[in-house]
Amino acid sequence: MNKINIKPLSDRVLVEPLPAEKTTASGLIIPDSAKEKQQKGTVIAVGNGLKDEPMTVKVGDTVLYGKYAGTELVVDGTDYLIMRESDILAIV
Amino acid sequence: MNKINIKPLSDRVLVEPLPAEKTTASGLIIPDSAKEKQQKGTVIAVGNGLKDEPMTVKVGDTVLYGKYAGTELVVDGTDYLIMRESDILAIV
Amino acid sequence: MNKINIKPLSDRVLVEPLPAEKTTASGLIIPDSAKEKQQKGTVIAVGNGLKDEPMTVKVGDTVLYGKYAGTELVVDGTDYLIMRESDILAIV
Amino acid sequence: MNKINIKPLSDRVLVEPLPAEKTTASGLIIPDSAKEKQQKGTVIAVGNGLKDEPMTVKVGDTVLYGKYAGTELVVDGTDYLIMRESDILAIV
Amino acid sequence: MNKINIKPLSDRVLVEPLPAEKTTASGLIIPDSAKEKQQKGTVIAVGNGLKDEPMTVKVGDTVLYGKYAGTELVVDGTDYLIMRESDILAIV
Amino acid sequence: MNKINIKPLSDRVLVEPLPAEKTTASGLIIPDSAKEKQQKGTVIAVGNGLKDEPMTVKVGDTVLYGKYAGTELVVDGTDYLIMRESDILAIV
Amino acid sequence: MNKINIKPLSDRVLVEPLPAEKTTASGLIIPDSAKEKQQKGTVIAVGNGLKDEPMTVKVGDTVLYGKYAGTELVVDGTDYLIMRESDILAIV
Repeated sequence: MNKINIKPLSDRVLVEPLPAEKTTASGLIIPDSAKEKQQKGTVIAVGNGLKDEPMTVKVGDTVLYGKYAGTELVVDGTDYLIMRESDILAIV
Repeated sequence: MNKINIKPLSDRVLVEPLPAEKTTASGLIIPDSAKEKQQKGTVIAVGNGLKDEPMTVKVGDTVLYGKYAGTELVVDGTDYLIMRESDILAIV
Repeated sequence: MNKINIKPLSDRVLVEPLPAEKTTASGLIIPDSAKEKQQKGTVIAVGNGLKDEPMTVKVGDTVLYGKYAGTELVVDGTDYLIMRESDILAIV
Repeated sequence: MNKINIKPLSDRVLVEPLPAEKTTASGLIIPDSAKEKQQKGTVIAVGNGLKDEPMTVKVGDTVLYGKYAGTELVVDGTDYLIMRESDILAIV
Repeated sequence: MNKINIKPLSDRVLVEPLPAEKTTASGLIIPDSAKEKQQKGTVIAVGNGLKDEPMTVKVGDTVLYGKYAGTELVVDGTDYLIMRESDILAIV
Repeated sequence: MNKINIKPLSDRVLVEPLPAEKTTASGLIIPDSAKEKQQKGTVIAVGNGLKDEPMTVKVGDTVLYGKYAGTELVVDGTDYLIMRESDILAIV
Repeated sequence: MNKINIKPLSDRVLVEPLPAEKTTASGLIIPDSAKEKQQKGTVIAVGNGLKDEPMTVKVGDTVLYGKYAGTELVVDGTDYLIMRESDILAIV
């Protein structure tokens, strides 16, 4: 997990995607037949949340999100995604 | 029902689908002519719900949901669906 | 009216449709020229309603609903529909 | 005005349409060039209204509504329309 | 301004359109190039408004509204429009 | 700035557009490549605002707005635009 | 950073875009494969925010925003963008 200086706005979350897996220690597999394939990543930074709705995920969480969630950005050669917390399906 | 370590976010529910049935002990049949075919599954994990709206379903419930509800994921070779509670039609 | 063990979620209603009628004791006829043909059924089970909005229909009510309302399901060879209360037009 | 036993749900209104007029005592004419032709009918039954919004129209009112408002139903050979109160333009 | 007995529902306004003008005493001209051409009329009747939102226009006001605002109706040979107050652009 | 007697309704603003500029004293230029070209005008009249939301712009302000904002009207040979305050981008 | 006299309305932000980078001191790179390419700019002016929602970004912040965010305007030969704060992804 890198240290980078980006503060997401509102309910956004900066995620560093984990490499796609076929078979992993935790056994999580992304099926070919999935209607909307989930992705897995590490939370790098979180926003302050919406008004009266604090964030649930925190830095260091491993999260699942949909294939088309978020906007890509690259810092120092590393790919990140910035997405709204509502695009995150679950914490694993 | 497997033990897996996934915490759905918000009002999401992790469901392990039951195999499609033609005629079952409980007699539930998915009709061919159904406009939106229902599916049946077991609740494996539930989120914390929306603000001021606690979840209704709980782990172990057998639920019905629409054919296109949720996002597929596979853990240790088992298929799961993660969906919003509003995609669940009924508890059986 | 069968006894079945299905608990609709939220503001959903489980309805057992009555056979289509041409001329009935109550005289209700579904016109061919209807833009959205109404249907008639018996309420079998009701959900707990939305937050702060209790349900109006109750088990045993005969209700009218639009032709495309709800999702079909079959239990022990009987056709049911599960729909939101807002899809129900009237109690007859 | 017939007596029929139908209770509209929510903010719905059961209306018995009046025959289309060219020139009437009240002089109301439906123009051919109207973008959305109004219709006239008698209110037969009203629902309980939405939460905190009681109904404005009452049984016996003559109302105007748009051409495509509501769902048709036929009881004892009489055509009715069931529509939301928001589909009613005016009381005449 | 005619006397007619029509009570608009909710936030609706009954308007008697004024004849289209090229050059008038008040100098108001409807431009050919207008993206949405305004129209001018006299308010004949107003509804009770929405919940907690009383009406702004009153009977006798001359108002401007968009070209496609409202529903036409004809009473005793006079053309009227019934529209929501939100379709009215300004009082002149 | 002309004196005209038009009272915009709700949160609407009557604007007299300023002539398009290439290079001006204030240096403001409308770029050809702009996705949505801004326009500049003078506020002539303002509505009373939405419920609990007073207006921000006032008569005499010079404002920027999007190219497709508002409805054109012509009074005494002068072109005006009537638009919602939310169509105004900034006060200059 | 120029001094210009523009007051954005509501929750809008005036941003001066920074030149596109391939490799920078901070190492931020806009990937070719990005679904929605982020852009970087300096905040020049901010509005008063929405009702009960003060602004988060302030003058001088460097912000990331989506490729299609905002409306272009040119003042004294400098390109600016005016966008809603919700179009801003993060402060860097």
